[in-house]
Amino acid sequence: CPASQIQTVTLIPGDGIGPEISNAVMKIFEAAKAPIRWEERNVTAIRGPGGKWMIPPDAKESMDKNKIGLKGPLKTPIAAGHPSMNLLLRKTFDLYANVRPCVSIEGYQTPYTDVNLVTIRENTEGEYSGIEHVIVDGVVQSIKLITEQASKRIAEYAFEYARNNQRASVTAVHKANIMRMSDGLFLRKCREAAEKYKDVKFTEMYLDTVCLNMVQDPTQFDVLVMPNLYGDILSDLCAGLIGGLGVTPSGNIGANGVAIFESVHGTAPDIAGKDLANPTALLLSAVMMLRHMGLHGHAKKIESACFDTIRDRKVLTKDLGGNSKCSEFTEAICQRMKDMD
Amino acid sequence: CPASQIQTVTLIPGDGIGPEISNAVMKIFEAAKAPIRWEERNVTAIRGPGGKWMIPPDAKESMDKNKIGLKGPLKTPIAAGHPSMNLLLRKTFDLYANVRPCVSIEGYQTPYTDVNLVTIRENTEGEYSGIEHVIVDGVVQSIKLITEQASKRIAEYAFEYARNNQRASVTAVHKANIMRMSDGLFLRKCREAAEKYKDVKFTEMYLDTVCLNMVQDPTQFDVLVMPNLYGDILSDLCAGLIGGLGVTPSGNIGANGVAIFESVHGTAPDIAGKDLANPTALLLSAVMMLRHMGLHGHAKKIESACFDTIRDRKVLTKDLGGNSKCSEFTEAICQRMKDMD
Ligand SMILES: CC(C)[C@H](C(=O)O)[C@@H](O)C(=O)O
Ligand SMILES: CC(C)[C@H](C(=O)O)[C@@H](O)C(=O)O
Repeated sequence: CPASQIQTVTLIPGDGIGPEISNAVMKIFEAAKAPIRWEERNVTAIRGPGGKWMIPPDAKESMDKNKIGLKGPLKTPIAAGHPSMNLLLRKTFDLYANVRPCVSIEGYQTPYTDVNLVTIRENTEGEYSGIEHVIVDGVVQSIKLITEQASKRIAEYAFEYARNNQRASVTAVHKANIMRMSDGLFLRKCREAAEKYKDVKFTEMYLDTVCLNMVQDPTQFDVLVMPNLYGDILSDLCAGLIGGLGVTPSGNIGANGVAIFESVHGTAPDIAGKDLANPTALLLSAVMMLRHMGLHGHAKKIESACFDTIRDRKVLTKDLGGNSKCSEFTEAICQRMKDMD
Repeated sequence: CPASQIQTVTLIPGDGIGPEISNAVMKIFEAAKAPIRWEERNVTAIRGPGGKWMIPPDAKESMDKNKIGLKGPLKTPIAAGHPSMNLLLRKTFDLYANVRPCVSIEGYQTPYTDVNLVTIRENTEGEYSGIEHVIVDGVVQSIKLITEQASKRIAEYAFEYARNNQRASVTAVHKANIMRMSDGLFLRKCREAAEKYKDVKFTEMYLDTVCLNMVQDPTQFDVLVMPNLYGDILSDLCAGLIGGLGVTPSGNIGANGVAIFESVHGTAPDIAGKDLANPTALLLSAVMMLRHMGLHGHAKKIESACFDTIRDRKVLTKDLGGNSKCSEFTEAICQRMKDMD
């Protein structure tokens, strides 16, 4: 690649197994000759002026400049009042769409086959507003905030995503029978977006019904769009259908191309540093990132090498049912790509 | 049975397939010689003084007198501002605990075996408070209300249930990492209840994690207790694991023995009146009712006859994979009980 085409991406390796799986991804990207330069930044929340929690300035500057980030797991701070780093990152860069494709992986058996759906979660408001009060002693309220602007934005994102990814339908997931005003507003914005995207089929379903139908036959679903908390729940449920958070990619998308792709599993401190971690979720997130950057050839190449390695079942990490180390699994993927050349 | 031991129960047959499946249950109870007299009442919301929606006085009086009710599906009114009848009933009688056992049914195949868990849902507040506001144009808030009193009540109910039903553990399901004050309060009350019931194991888990683990291995769960909306979601998800709402019983429990047992599936207007409906969910709800009334022998007898009929796979309704009519399935269950005598 000519140096001019190389793009710089902010890499947040994260805690626990984060550095190992980040290394694996970097090795695989190198073997794939992906035109990416990594700019590593550590992210630990620090206190800014007025005691406000913020991410370190050098990480913020790196993201502001590069626009695109890849992130491993970050440990959840236990200090009282300390925000979740994942949430702080989503907020800092206004990453309003949380996108999680769930696709069955050949060679990794679960009770389900042919799952192929995408959850699109509103990532900025709803039950995650952080507004809570004690009304009187023993009576607490949490506020779920739904705005027209954020609902419209995520609804249109979902339809745009469906159109650009050759997906036939979008389902709005809601409880507007109960939260008539808030989920009602969300649903209205989905209906309005549907009017603008007549080429994409639109349906609406209650969250409870989606959960029930999902475990009975997930193949009926395609793109699902929903408020924040419902997305938190449904994306994990769907990840479970295909093998869990160790194999599920995720992207947090903002305006003007800004995006952070991340593995959403934990830091797994028990196996950290032992070369036992499975880098698949972070790798597939990095593949999503490549597609986001328009690097479809490299994305396809890495994805195929990863899926072929899993299908083959010869070199697999423990959680995937094998006995290999993270470095061996990584090497197997790299070797496949060399064989492709 | 001596007439003095016969107890009267309020029967709300409901809409659509409601009357057919209620008839089926009555036939089976008769064949089982269950000492129950049914007092049938129709429930359609009416407007009381000041325009407030309420259930008809004769239904209310019947429930006030009998304390115990069995209810088929009620159609969801489409009139604006009309409350869900299910919610209105739960509210009217302060039925604070929604109890849904999910147990794998032999002979009805799903991707899961050996599911044996119970969801216990707080049934009076949370996201179902009905309090919503427009803050400014395009900005809506819904209020999730969590009180110490209701949280304590449901937490203690869950432990009491576990103890009385030989269940080893209670898991509190929450998102106190996000809703720190409201779910935090709920969780605190669960922890306090756990202190009082040292013979029952206590664990706590995030809702998203529960959903993920549930679809991967539901056998790890026992009794689960949670706020209102989470229960709505998780109970449907769990129903899906064992075959859906057509086979899942449900009970709404209040103070001083007051309770309404109900099938939570829809009214199925497309097959109503055609003798095609599956009465299993209402029948198993009625079995829960018998246990609630201390009639364990009759409960066991009816339950066995129902499960044996399904396991046998000779006489099944369409949704269970058979070709039989509702009346034939009902007759098969009755016949089994006669054979037992
Ligand atoms: C870590 C946690 C705050 C986060 C959430 O609740 O959104 C996680 O569950 C997720 O889905 O990314
Ligand atoms: C009918 C509806 C209002 C109800 C709910 O949301 O609670 C139903 O889904 C249930 O689970 O009983």
